[in-house]
Amino acid sequence: MAYTIGVDYGSNSVRAIVARCDDGNEVGASVFNYPSGEMGILLDSNDHNLARQHPGDYLAGVETTIKEALAEAAKIDPDFSAEKVIGIGVDSTGSSPIPVDEENGALAMKPNFAGNLAAECWLWKDHTSVEEAAKITELGRAHRPQYLAKCGNTYSSEWFWAKLWHCLNVAPEVFDAAYSWVELCDWIPAILGGVTDPKQVKRGICAAGHKAFYADDWGGLPDKEFLALLDPKLAELRDRLYEKAFDASEKAGELCENWATKLGLPAGIPIAIGEFDVHYGAIGAGVDEGTLVKVIGTSTCDCGVVKANKEVADIPGICGIVKGAILPGYYGIEAGQSAVGDIFAWFVNHVCKGDGETHARLTKEAEAYKPGGIGLLALDWNNGNRTILVDPLLAGALIGQTLHTTQSEIYRSLIEGTAFGARMILERIEAYGVPVTRVVCAGGIAEKNPLLMQIYADITGREMLISGSSQTCALGSAVSAAVLAGSENGGYDDFETAQAKMTRLKDVSYKPNPESQAVYNELFALYKKLHDAFGGVKTEDLGKVMKDLLSIKERARA
Amino acid sequence: MAYTIGVDYGSNSVRAIVARCDDGNEVGASVFNYPSGEMGILLDSNDHNLARQHPGDYLAGVETTIKEALAEAAKIDPDFSAEKVIGIGVDSTGSSPIPVDEENGALAMKPNFAGNLAAECWLWKDHTSVEEAAKITELGRAHRPQYLAKCGNTYSSEWFWAKLWHCLNVAPEVFDAAYSWVELCDWIPAILGGVTDPKQVKRGICAAGHKAFYADDWGGLPDKEFLALLDPKLAELRDRLYEKAFDASEKAGELCENWATKLGLPAGIPIAIGEFDVHYGAIGAGVDEGTLVKVIGTSTCDCGVVKANKEVADIPGICGIVKGAILPGYYGIEAGQSAVGDIFAWFVNHVCKGDGETHARLTKEAEAYKPGGIGLLALDWNNGNRTILVDPLLAGALIGQTLHTTQSEIYRSLIEGTAFGARMILERIEAYGVPVTRVVCAGGIAEKNPLLMQIYADITGREMLISGSSQTCALGSAVSAAVLAGSENGGYDDFETAQAKMTRLKDVSYKPNPESQAVYNELFALYKKLHDAFGGVKTEDLGKVMKDLLSIKERARA
Repeated sequence: MAYTIGVDYGSNSVRAIVARCDDGNEVGASVFNYPSGEMGILLDSNDHNLARQHPGDYLAGVETTIKEALAEAAKIDPDFSAEKVIGIGVDSTGSSPIPVDEENGALAMKPNFAGNLAAECWLWKDHTSVEEAAKITELGRAHRPQYLAKCGNTYSSEWFWAKLWHCLNVAPEVFDAAYSWVELCDWIPAILGGVTDPKQVKRGICAAGHKAFYADDWGGLPDKEFLALLDPKLAELRDRLYEKAFDASEKAGELCENWATKLGLPAGIPIAIGEFDVHYGAIGAGVDEGTLVKVIGTSTCDCGVVKANKEVADIPGICGIVKGAILPGYYGIEAGQSAVGDIFAWFVNHVCKGDGETHARLTKEAEAYKPGGIGLLALDWNNGNRTILVDPLLAGALIGQTLHTTQSEIYRSLIEGTAFGARMILERIEAYGVPVTRVVCAGGIAEKNPLLMQIYADITGREMLISGSSQTCALGSAVSAAVLAGSENGGYDDFETAQAKMTRLKDVSYKPNPESQAVYNELFALYKKLHDAFGGVKTEDLGKVMKDLLSIKERARA
Repeated sequence: MAYTIGVDYGSNSVRAIVARCDDGNEVGASVFNYPSGEMGILLDSNDHNLARQHPGDYLAGVETTIKEALAEAAKIDPDFSAEKVIGIGVDSTGSSPIPVDEENGALAMKPNFAGNLAAECWLWKDHTSVEEAAKITELGRAHRPQYLAKCGNTYSSEWFWAKLWHCLNVAPEVFDAAYSWVELCDWIPAILGGVTDPKQVKRGICAAGHKAFYADDWGGLPDKEFLALLDPKLAELRDRLYEKAFDASEKAGELCENWATKLGLPAGIPIAIGEFDVHYGAIGAGVDEGTLVKVIGTSTCDCGVVKANKEVADIPGICGIVKGAILPGYYGIEAGQSAVGDIFAWFVNHVCKGDGETHARLTKEAEAYKPGGIGLLALDWNNGNRTILVDPLLAGALIGQTLHTTQSEIYRSLIEGTAFGARMILERIEAYGVPVTRVVCAGGIAEKNPLLMQIYADITGREMLISGSSQTCALGSAVSAAVLAGSENGGYDDFETAQAKMTRLKDVSYKPNPESQAVYNELFALYKKLHDAFGGVKTEDLGKVMKDLLSIKERARA
């Protein structure tokens, strides 16, 4: 019997699981909440776009969770012993780049940068670099349209180059001190592998391709001439980043003696290439051609794959189409919604000032309404729109309130708003020739919220299947580690076999109700009108309203 | 020393005051909350458009409040005695028509109509007759454009004919049993005067002109030919309504022996013609040419006057321009917002589920934000739009929410939304040649909410003056009674003198802050875009969204 470890870095915590290679069962697990900041996120009360994390939390977390998960496995599974662990896989949020020194140490962990937010990890949902992202889009369109074509034609403030450039603009002392920058999902495997030279860190093509304009087609990262258009210092930095990025058929390294001792694991076991959480999550949910995996949490990520020997059209507004980003030998397609669970949490915490029971009460009340019966329509853009408008400056909207509108009606309309947003993505992907025959949902919300899942089924008109693991991302990382270890060590020789053995679906699924679907089709037509008007797709008159509001707000607060 | 009584029928209660004729001081007052329904309003849980009231509550209320106000006056003012009361004035909400029998008795008070909501008083904010109102608008435009021109070119579901027609359509047994229909503001004076024949009830031109298409120009009420286009039964009813309506220079009657005994007042004292609350409120706030009086409460009414010897253009979207409706010898202009205080109450009660302290807390927090600093914009249409779109089917909207938006930011944006709505009205009136050189605000919100008043000043760019009386409507009724009684009885011979003596402003006023004004001008431009888009003025694409939502909702709930 062999086991692999999957480590999953989320927005507020990291978790590790120990998975049995023969059936994927999780025999040990542990969660570690990042101790710094607010729920693990370093904030700036003067700038709600800022979201950073402390790399020290990541290191404390990986040690604690792996040890605890191993201890639990030893208790639960009589067959288990730590020597039977044949590999480790790591996934994380992203793009979450960390500025590092020449020894691959995080700047934020050095005394002279203590308290400097720019030296911390720039969490995926940091939106401080909106202006830089817009400029990259503009320069990209003018000079390197091929770069943008692979990431939906608009560069996002959530992404690598925008964040680095913003750091250069607002905290040049950090930028200058950084020898290199490493994505969190690449940094942890390198640390576990004992890599002390940033140029030796093996970078995953997932982060590189989706967030950093990397593609083999044009020789890796963007060329220096283009980067110099942003800033000559970014062009210089290119030499200190990486030449090549790798898919999951490569290993990131092998567990070094130091960490092996610390964790009580065999030294030398392979460490999988790091991927983003949802990409390994897609693998953990059994992604294959025709399957869309939706990981539904605070935000949502949608992943699909298409065999790399086929033509895939550039899909406008999609976060990216990157060869090898999810499964080796496939194009990985990524889309997503910038906020889903976060919107419900906002409404409950900030608007209702609710307590621990409020979600449950509102869900129960919201179940009683018929589709269309609330007379409300919400745009799910409280955190901007990632797909298909790729515009972090868009904001939420609620239309149709009367003097009788209730909390739970608004709550339901927010759920419906996210479902309409999900349908926009589905239709966009299909419109560009990527058929979706199966939708598998993963994540806490998918597992625990039957009302939401039924609404998603009714609004998209698709059956919603649910991933069998409640730790789909960590499981995907463990699957990747099992493939890397190979069958000779008790793992597998290819992802298809590994997924077939190690992943499954839950028995429950949600099928669209034709009556509800008909009503929601009407509401979706209205949603599209709002989407296109406020998104600036169709109606000039309203297309700038949200942005004008924001710039007025920023001036008022300045 | 002489005194007059003002009786003011509001949406949830009736109040009476005893006013000294020499200085307008209120020496006695009493409030009576209508005992029936929810806060005095009979509701239908299946139809949130329905709002009725029980006429029995009105009769109990007038007796209780006048007696209590007289008793208080006797205690407070050593000069006072009931024999010194020289007149009574009555105002009420409207259009609030009551179906009556041949003796002017309310049908709802007869045993065979007990529990029949259609037999009760149809409160101003009853919106059940939306379809009938739309048909009246259509027929009016085609056949009698002159009728519609005087009431903003659109007939409202809040008005007389729409309500009667809807009663005929949904409760023909009530319509058939009603000998006639009398507005609440006309019914009470008639009751106090002992009038037992509906055709002898002296109707005020205020209700008749603003809500029932009455004008001397075309011989009173709409002609039978037109009414027959609605329904032949409405044409028949015309003969059982009234030939002529009167302004406040006429009396409605004299206090009958029966009620004089009941109330302890001299029989035979004059009873003023009934007007709507805000019309007498305008008089109580000192309305004259160039002054706009805003009565700000659950909803808002805006009143102005123009000398009747001038030309007044028809103003599209205004509730009405009626000669004699407020002051004799002047055109009365009425506009308004369907919900103001009601929107804040909705947010606090239904969304925040707040308690008695919530308004105060949110107001305090909302004060801390700078104009524009909240990044939100609200359409103040939770109860439809009365002026200038005249569309009860419009609904509220909130734009610009992030994941950080707070309760008090939303609260402030709702206040701002109503202020933008107020500015739309002001600009519309001025655009059609009625200059506004002074704005006087009255009502509880104007008196008690400095934040709101400052926002109104900043958004409209006008100084907001505050009426000196906290019972401006009742005071206006008392002023009208004093004029009717005449100087020979201790009253006055004209409204100008009576207003100068009996009404005043508070010392406090709110002046626009130029910096705030500049920011709000920008926001107002955005508000107008939303207004025009969702109001269907400019953008076809969104102009029907709210209505489509509503019809989907109605079908879903059916």
